[in-house]
Amino acid sequence: MCRWAAYIGEPIFLEDIVSRPGHSLIHQSQCATECKSATNADGFGIAWYGERAEPGLFCDILPAWSDPNLKSLTAQVRSRLFLAHVRASTGTATSRNNCHPFAVGRWSFMHNGQIGGYDRFRRDADMLIPDALYAHRKGATDSEALFLLALAEGLEGDPKGALERATARLEGLSRQKGAAPHVRMTAAFSDGARLYAVRYATDDHAPTLYHRWSASRGGRAVVSEPLESGEDWLAVSPGSFCTFDGTECRVDTFRPNPVAVAA
Amino acid sequence: MCRWAAYIGEPIFLEDIVSRPGHSLIHQSQCATECKSATNADGFGIAWYGERAEPGLFCDILPAWSDPNLKSLTAQVRSRLFLAHVRASTGTATSRNNCHPFAVGRWSFMHNGQIGGYDRFRRDADMLIPDALYAHRKGATDSEALFLLALAEGLEGDPKGALERATARLEGLSRQKGAAPHVRMTAAFSDGARLYAVRYATDDHAPTLYHRWSASRGGRAVVSEPLESGEDWLAVSPGSFCTFDGTECRVDTFRPNPVAVAA
Amino acid sequence: MCRWAAYIGEPIFLEDIVSRPGHSLIHQSQCATECKSATNADGFGIAWYGERAEPGLFCDILPAWSDPNLKSLTAQVRSRLFLAHVRASTGTATSRNNCHPFAVGRWSFMHNGQIGGYDRFRRDADMLIPDALYAHRKGATDSEALFLLALAEGLEGDPKGALERATARLEGLSRQKGAAPHVRMTAAFSDGARLYAVRYATDDHAPTLYHRWSASRGGRAVVSEPLESGEDWLAVSPGSFCTFDGTECRVDTFRPNPVAVAA
Amino acid sequence: MCRWAAYIGEPIFLEDIVSRPGHSLIHQSQCATECKSATNADGFGIAWYGERAEPGLFCDILPAWSDPNLKSLTAQVRSRLFLAHVRASTGTATSRNNCHPFAVGRWSFMHNGQIGGYDRFRRDADMLIPDALYAHRKGATDSEALFLLALAEGLEGDPKGALERATARLEGLSRQKGAAPHVRMTAAFSDGARLYAVRYATDDHAPTLYHRWSASRGGRAVVSEPLESGEDWLAVSPGSFCTFDGTECRVDTFRPNPVAVAA
Repeated sequence: MCRWAAYIGEPIFLEDIVSRPGHSLIHQSQCATECKSATNADGFGIAWYGERAEPGLFCDILPAWSDPNLKSLTAQVRSRLFLAHVRASTGTATSRNNCHPFAVGRWSFMHNGQIGGYDRFRRDADMLIPDALYAHRKGATDSEALFLLALAEGLEGDPKGALERATARLEGLSRQKGAAPHVRMTAAFSDGARLYAVRYATDDHAPTLYHRWSASRGGRAVVSEPLESGEDWLAVSPGSFCTFDGTECRVDTFRPNPVAVAA
Repeated sequence: MCRWAAYIGEPIFLEDIVSRPGHSLIHQSQCATECKSATNADGFGIAWYGERAEPGLFCDILPAWSDPNLKSLTAQVRSRLFLAHVRASTGTATSRNNCHPFAVGRWSFMHNGQIGGYDRFRRDADMLIPDALYAHRKGATDSEALFLLALAEGLEGDPKGALERATARLEGLSRQKGAAPHVRMTAAFSDGARLYAVRYATDDHAPTLYHRWSASRGGRAVVSEPLESGEDWLAVSPGSFCTFDGTECRVDTFRPNPVAVAA
Repeated sequence: MCRWAAYIGEPIFLEDIVSRPGHSLIHQSQCATECKSATNADGFGIAWYGERAEPGLFCDILPAWSDPNLKSLTAQVRSRLFLAHVRASTGTATSRNNCHPFAVGRWSFMHNGQIGGYDRFRRDADMLIPDALYAHRKGATDSEALFLLALAEGLEGDPKGALERATARLEGLSRQKGAAPHVRMTAAFSDGARLYAVRYATDDHAPTLYHRWSASRGGRAVVSEPLESGEDWLAVSPGSFCTFDGTECRVDTFRPNPVAVAA
Repeated sequence: MCRWAAYIGEPIFLEDIVSRPGHSLIHQSQCATECKSATNADGFGIAWYGERAEPGLFCDILPAWSDPNLKSLTAQVRSRLFLAHVRASTGTATSRNNCHPFAVGRWSFMHNGQIGGYDRFRRDADMLIPDALYAHRKGATDSEALFLLALAEGLEGDPKGALERATARLEGLSRQKGAAPHVRMTAAFSDGARLYAVRYATDDHAPTLYHRWSASRGGRAVVSEPLESGEDWLAVSPGSFCTFDGTECRVDTFRPNPVAVAA
């Protein structure tokens, strides 16, 4: 399990989400409260959109709380759209190649959760990634595989459908060769224009997902756990796909169909 | 606060202390129970004595639980005398130069605790280190300063007295320029022949220190926290200096005298 | 291109090969003379056999010349059989997962050279790795793929044949989808009992390979470049597979057959 | 010896200096031509001024050529004033704390060269740093000591005089306790408004220093080595102190006076 936070809105310093709030992402790297692993110290990463179409990427394998580069960068860089992640490994190595967010072209992606029994079908998952995207397969995580599969399924034109199909393919592998619980996840991703987030599980234990519009900032934070207590965070229901565009938030049903995929 | 474990006796694989016990040092890096910081993920290190007079040293800035080098090394290397440490920084950087154990010549040293208000008199502490030893001042911790001062005070001929005098000098600085609590510490150190350990505090909250002879191993473990529950670990009293030599354990009073030093 | 050195014989400290000779492996990491890349600073690794069937593994992403852990470890650890490697990346990331030697069970493996156009058929190469070995696919290098394919082809019972078949499969992919030169390589590998080395290329530019028996050490070094000038190093011919067993050295023809594989 | 490059002018992406030119700083990390060490792979760092008074700082211990964070950051961040450095250690450890640029408050500083025999008087150098600045003494380099001494000597109000006095103090220590050549250096530093650079040596071998105004960029690069061949770079004479302010460049004599200091 990991923790993550994303933002869309008026440009703010990354630290306004990453380190300044009382229960900031860095605080969650030491003391997460709504997930099994209170410590999320197996690396961190940020992806932010600036002047270029492609996001900037910065990640490292230190605990987020002790990296001076992260502290300096988040104090200097201002962005209208960014993703930040702290990792608790579910088995794969602590390596920069396994740190979220992942990025391909304009797209960035980060994930919290697991595909059940993934190490039993990691090769099958890799085989689902088409040749054209395989150069972007840098690490060994289920998360990166999910992202590349979603790109292969058409993230560009149909974000929700592509992620549903990608999730369905991995869920199908988990049902066939893996173990229960088959899928428990939240994820956030972006093309640099909109921010998308999903909450989904094959059982009753979907990881938590919240968002909140801040009038003072003129932007919205989307998070694993509220950044401050006592604020009016909106909890997203399991099986939901959120599209954040400017001030708007649209919620759709997220329903992967693993049966059809397995056929 | 940090956690540490040391061993003297028949040669054993380092992993028999570092990773195999139920509450091994690596387990304590994630879930320490007898100190304020449950997570000790700001680096780790080991010093072990083999065929040479000088100890081997291995340290890194990753959390101990996720370093494959540490796992492999402790599974391969057997030693009759070694020190192992997991760090929770009390302020100085996560850097290999700040990882324990420290070593100079045949001596190795590791420490848990703090000298109160150390950042207000770090320069004074550095100034106490004589020229001849200053080349060994690689990092910025109070722990390394304490070790170098103890060497300067004659660790070679009088381990207990030298550490008392070194502690007294830093305690004096803390009383003069620092903050209470002035000293809370355990430490373990060795010249490759004997293993020494100390427990001391200027208030009633000395960090815990235990040891236990294992007949099956033919050796003794000296630790911050017992490596297994339900075993007959001996708690060392505050104000004690232990000398472990072969099967023997001698306990002396440890009483730094900061007044005389400050005079 | 990378540089490597291996040893079999009476136990010696690793530093006797890794850092002490005038043109030691660490010296070669800064100033290699017989390969295109004089600087081999994209990580290093060692695999050594001690008391256990499985080798110890130690690698990192720093240049070998500046890693104090490497210096200390090679000064302390003595071994009768070990492999050491300094890396110059041919494209894949500087990551511990991409550092040689690789190890699976009792086997260790390291490689110098390249499979031409590998990034065009990396997915195909991964697909050749059977499910049972895929958990050991940790990085993205052609070298690790070659090792896993050789294991799949029966390295255990037929070292030369298995490596020929594995090389043939990758050579076939290079001829089909990659680029010339298709294969240029040396490699060394071991099961903890014998040491094997190969020199092979599909053109006239096979990387260099030497070995030398040292009567004073009672052992043999097998290397990319001689460790000292003015010594009687034996150059291995291209298309050769060497088996080093105790004091003996047997040389066989190494002839992958990519045509048969492609059929 | 190290290599560095700095820039002042219209905001440009850092990569326009750091990685894009034919003989960019990253190229110099592998193939420097005007210094003794062609390879500068013992860490790197950048300091850039953006919206805040204090500069952003980013450094790491990998060779600059292989760090994806550096690549991404320099492609995203635009700055009107920045310093960039690649390091070749002259003895002190490869550690983030020893990477340039250093920063205190609004000031950043980087250095190339050496103070002769520094390891014989490192403690004396540290003792010259006043208490108020000692918290900023993070590493062990002569470079950081020079910077902190310059701050102590009044960098704020009198940049040239302060650096002359700081240099004189270290030069005095080198003459008294160190070794010839006593000082060979270039340095660049900034308060976020102006960029300063110095070239100085106590013998005839001052490291090289160049600058060039680019009309197309609307800014000036100040460098150890020209970033492109065939361009009209201006060589700075030894014993010069340059002040770059907007489009202007003023050159003054730089003349430390170690005699007076030693008195």
